[in-house]
Amino acid sequence: MSYTLDKQVAGSFNDVVAQTEEALAEEGFGVLCDIDVEATFAKKLDVDFRKYRILGACNPPLAHEGIEAELGLGALLPCNVIVYETDDGDVAVRAVDPEVLLDAVDNPELDEIAAEVRERFERVLDSLPESVEE
Amino acid sequence: MSYTLDKQVAGSFNDVVAQTEEALAEEGFGVLCDIDVEATFAKKLDVDFRKYRILGACNPPLAHEGIEAELGLGALLPCNVIVYETDDGDVAVRAVDPEVLLDAVDNPELDEIAAEVRERFERVLDSLPESVEE
Repeated sequence: MSYTLDKQVAGSFNDVVAQTEEALAEEGFGVLCDIDVEATFAKKLDVDFRKYRILGACNPPLAHEGIEAELGLGALLPCNVIVYETDDGDVAVRAVDPEVLLDAVDNPELDEIAAEVRERFERVLDSLPESVEE
Repeated sequence: MSYTLDKQVAGSFNDVVAQTEEALAEEGFGVLCDIDVEATFAKKLDVDFRKYRILGACNPPLAHEGIEAELGLGALLPCNVIVYETDDGDVAVRAVDPEVLLDAVDNPELDEIAAEVRERFERVLDSLPESVEE
């Protein structure tokens, strides 16, 4: 089982990032953390890298419920959605699968929350315009 | 197996956060993401919560090596170190166990990197002053 929910999206990188952020907001997720991996590697390592962003998405009511049930859960939050350029010129959007992520935490109280976050991430991906296969 | 490496630390919350950030820097980790969970819940949900910070730690050379080996790895990065007030007035510092985290990713090229990050996190925790049991 993959650790992410994936979609290949048509459009420019920056447009896809903006669309992803809008779609996350529609599902109640704020982006609490936004890491520009390309810029970080350029600055810290002086290496070229593909366009690659890590959006740390947090739905506050679900995060609160989760941390109340499992105090250490913050070690696995926020749930990331990554956006990067693929080798064939598309843009990949991949959301971490919260059910796989929370496998590491043996706490059944989190099952329902993980399922809820997963459903919302699926709707986020569904809302993005699919890349057309040539 | 727990999903975090844990230590109960003596000292005030803010001092422990600062010491943790210094210790992470000594091991080559920058904090790319710093979430004040208490403030976020107060602002977004109008609820009181314990002092709780999520520090997203990134060692750029190891992150670069990891993402080169596994393009989707950003979905699980940065590696978090959480700091929070415990019920008995101490401060808990818990680093996500990268070996447990990367169990979800079936890529043996990451084993060595995960072990390296884990060793560095162990040294970070070792460097913090242990809470004395009464």
